[in-house]
Amino acid sequence: MSNLRDIARDTALSVATVSRALRSDPAVHPSTRHKVLAAAKKLGYQFNPYVGQLMSSLRQGRGEHHKGNLALIWFDTNPASNRHENMLVIRKSVHARAEELGYTVDEFFRNEYTPKTLRSILRSRGVRGIIISPPITTHGKTHLRMDLSGFAAISLGWALVHPALHSVRFDHYRSMHMALHHARHRFAGRIAAVWNFDISRRADHVSRAAFLAYHPSGPAIADKLFFDINRLQPAQVKTLLEKHRVECLICEAEVTFPWLYDLIPPEHFIYLARPRQTACFAWVDPRYDLLGKWGVDFLTSTLQRGEYDIPTEPKTMEVPGTFNIPDTV
Amino acid sequence: MSNLRDIARDTALSVATVSRALRSDPAVHPSTRHKVLAAAKKLGYQFNPYVGQLMSSLRQGRGEHHKGNLALIWFDTNPASNRHENMLVIRKSVHARAEELGYTVDEFFRNEYTPKTLRSILRSRGVRGIIISPPITTHGKTHLRMDLSGFAAISLGWALVHPALHSVRFDHYRSMHMALHHARHRFAGRIAAVWNFDISRRADHVSRAAFLAYHPSGPAIADKLFFDINRLQPAQVKTLLEKHRVECLICEAEVTFPWLYDLIPPEHFIYLARPRQTACFAWVDPRYDLLGKWGVDFLTSTLQRGEYDIPTEPKTMEVPGTFNIPDTV
Repeated sequence: MSNLRDIARDTALSVATVSRALRSDPAVHPSTRHKVLAAAKKLGYQFNPYVGQLMSSLRQGRGEHHKGNLALIWFDTNPASNRHENMLVIRKSVHARAEELGYTVDEFFRNEYTPKTLRSILRSRGVRGIIISPPITTHGKTHLRMDLSGFAAISLGWALVHPALHSVRFDHYRSMHMALHHARHRFAGRIAAVWNFDISRRADHVSRAAFLAYHPSGPAIADKLFFDINRLQPAQVKTLLEKHRVECLICEAEVTFPWLYDLIPPEHFIYLARPRQTACFAWVDPRYDLLGKWGVDFLTSTLQRGEYDIPTEPKTMEVPGTFNIPDTV
Repeated sequence: MSNLRDIARDTALSVATVSRALRSDPAVHPSTRHKVLAAAKKLGYQFNPYVGQLMSSLRQGRGEHHKGNLALIWFDTNPASNRHENMLVIRKSVHARAEELGYTVDEFFRNEYTPKTLRSILRSRGVRGIIISPPITTHGKTHLRMDLSGFAAISLGWALVHPALHSVRFDHYRSMHMALHHARHRFAGRIAAVWNFDISRRADHVSRAAFLAYHPSGPAIADKLFFDINRLQPAQVKTLLEKHRVECLICEAEVTFPWLYDLIPPEHFIYLARPRQTACFAWVDPRYDLLGKWGVDFLTSTLQRGEYDIPTEPKTMEVPGTFNIPDTV
């Protein structure tokens, strides 16, 4: 088996440059990197990124337990100043998991930097792995405009569509399936849904698909009972709810229309999120904590395989929610 | 920061036992392991599984590149004697990826052993990580009866429901969505589907849900045009296809009913699998190669975090299929 010296000799580069190229160090020019990878392949060199990382960590005097520095990039929320409870859950679990696995985490609010400045800050801090928070204020297809070459990156949630990164997202299909399963007997199958087609249409369609597939009255009726919250016509909703004698409403979160609570009592609602104030029949915890934890797991295993750059085959991991029926019911 | 000696002193165990306990070696009694983990937590010991594995590999004289021995367990197919082309694709990609990452793979056909014998063979070979092939001959809910404590395991496909393991499975939802997307314009939205509700009902319902959600004519009509292949009544199918002037059939694989090809010409079919002989409009490659490759990625990263036993929070990774339109069309 060949070693770094063989590759250095073959390419007429220094051992240090070869080593950096094999670790996809962004300081090495892409053409040099390609040359090194070609020579490594030709000479049958087997790259073990673990050894490299360990040695690099030891050289930096961080001890054998420090494995690297990660970045948590806030896409469009600044958790330092915001009231997004869910984002704080993500932050906490990212830090906790990174610490368990021997990594440190720096946080950045994307809007405070140009993409170029952010990239150079990350490089200067030796960051190779990035977690991108779930976009929450976007409509339609969300893009991240930043050169990610030389970095491993995981995006959280469904909303970011470009670039296509590895991602960890909620299993909305399963959450809706669970809600219908539990509502079925309690409400004799008389179930409607009110949805906010707003943040990620991909995710919303998945919820609707599960509603159509598992509704006890079949897809034709389910289709009539799945309402878009942005196009609600109270009179029409009232007519349909009465016609189908609906007893239970599934919502992605608490609704702000008092008239809806006049039609269906609050304690017949199922929320696919933790309700802040309203009593309900049940709710699904989408598990923001797992989104953060699994994001770190996913990112660090990608880093440890030495896989940087935009992936040619983006992987998707799905977080299952957990169903809760409050004690008071 | 404390080290192994501190834990050994605190627990009155040998350093070797402490080390084995921290690596979840199945030879260490669970009560001993719990004692060691409690002491490690108390003393603030931070476990770095990479160092342990590397050292263990070096001690075994395998060089720094050998990271461990994995098992590929064939659930209900014996690829040594079968004609399941897809299983051979999985086998090939598992071996190729394991080799790239520095692991070796032993294969076992589950039916040839009792669960107990298989477990002791795996232990004696030092296997800690297991990949379980997708069940293919089962109906309903598939169970694996084997004590997996002390092992990390990944199941491939949708069919295995118990125990709930980490799994890598096809994104059937996306495949159906893609098929409808491509068929929409070519066939003016006149699309039906013929499905085999046979191997995994969970997976089949996902395909149906996507068909209902994205069919151009809406869920009510889509529901009438999604046929269960095991309950096909030719006269009824003929009537419905004619009534809705269906021009395109989506099937999970080639069908064996010549009369169907009399109703819809073969070159108007879309298969959500690679067709063996029939010309078609298009087909989706579900990517059995990625199933195997990502299974190894998933398993080795689980091993490297030192996570053994049945997971309390099973993760799911979804493999996206790729859409193909043959040149001849």
